[in-house]
Amino acid sequence: MFVVEGIKMVQELLNSNFPAFKVYTTDLSNLEVEVNNVEIVSTSELRQMSGLKNPNSTIGAFYIPESKAVEFEDWILVLDDIRDPGNLGTIIRLCDWFGIKNLVCSKNTVDCYNPKVLQASMGSITRVNIVYIDLEDFLESVDSPIYGAFMDGNSVYEENLTKGGILVMGNEANGISKKVEKLISSKISIPQFGDDSTESLNVATATAILLNEIRRK
Amino acid sequence: MFVVEGIKMVQELLNSNFPAFKVYTTDLSNLEVEVNNVEIVSTSELRQMSGLKNPNSTIGAFYIPESKAVEFEDWILVLDDIRDPGNLGTIIRLCDWFGIKNLVCSKNTVDCYNPKVLQASMGSITRVNIVYIDLEDFLESVDSPIYGAFMDGNSVYEENLTKGGILVMGNEANGISKKVEKLISSKISIPQFGDDSTESLNVATATAILLNEIRRK
Repeated sequence: MFVVEGIKMVQELLNSNFPAFKVYTTDLSNLEVEVNNVEIVSTSELRQMSGLKNPNSTIGAFYIPESKAVEFEDWILVLDDIRDPGNLGTIIRLCDWFGIKNLVCSKNTVDCYNPKVLQASMGSITRVNIVYIDLEDFLESVDSPIYGAFMDGNSVYEENLTKGGILVMGNEANGISKKVEKLISSKISIPQFGDDSTESLNVATATAILLNEIRRK
Repeated sequence: MFVVEGIKMVQELLNSNFPAFKVYTTDLSNLEVEVNNVEIVSTSELRQMSGLKNPNSTIGAFYIPESKAVEFEDWILVLDDIRDPGNLGTIIRLCDWFGIKNLVCSKNTVDCYNPKVLQASMGSITRVNIVYIDLEDFLESVDSPIYGAFMDGNSVYEENLTKGGILVMGNEANGISKKVEKLISSKISIPQFGDDSTESLNVATATAILLNEIRRK
């Protein structure tokens, strides 16, 4: 199971038919949706349950749904060991914005039901199918072209991106691992216009730019 | 003055000729640059000075440099009340990556010398000229076309972006203020491909996409 805090997020999960174990609230009138498993708690009980300094009125415990099989019709985003919960949450939100329905994560990627990921994903988790899988096995089994983001790849502006495919983004510190790099068919990069000594882009902002590039074609 | 933590950041500021008030370090051999105003401190003294749980070996106190006049040759990014330090830091880093030399902030935008901003900007603050100014006065005084990011603007893919200009990004919760909106010549937006109920993009990721759009032309 996993826990979400805040009326907005609880409501969104209930509306998306995520199976609820129980919803705890200080005030039933907060909930616009009918829930069977709801329990009224006092403000101090809510504070004891909450992971936040200033708990919202409502907390929900939900069952983790089973992942669906990955669909290959469109673009698929693959994450190779993303460790920062804020980055994963932002990336899930980006998938939702750009209509990327399938997000494939390496087994060492941070858990998408981590509270910080849920907070940063802003409910987008209900609309993106997230699968944790061995990336080598997965990438070896696919037919689609596999693009990977590298500092020294070809400019994405000049790349003739296919209509569907796979985009791999690497770990915050180390980029794409050697094992996964072997399976990449095209290395791409985002051109830099500033000083050479500039730090590389954060993985979430780089993902934003590359998903935009995929969709603008 | 402002404080930065960590040998990498202190080093970068020293290399960029930011005037140092004093550098405090547990080990002189950390510093590759010669500094006049350096003081050796014990690990426990460093811990007392630091704002971090696990302080790095070195802390620097620097004088805040005077802003230079805004240059109008290229694109200028304008921020209307960005409040989150992480967002401002990420945006400064993006300016650096995309070679945007001038960043104009409303007076209520978070301070760029806030430690969390400095941490997120990763040294880019040494290469971007940041000016805090009354936005109405500033925008009324300029000749360049003024683009603003709005949820209901024209698709940026179809916009014939000028060679130079001004791009305005709004506050995290409220977007661009009414006062500033009046001065915008073109409202632009990033097309959405997912479900309608998706949350809007975070301002830092939206800035990443729009700066990329400006540069890819």
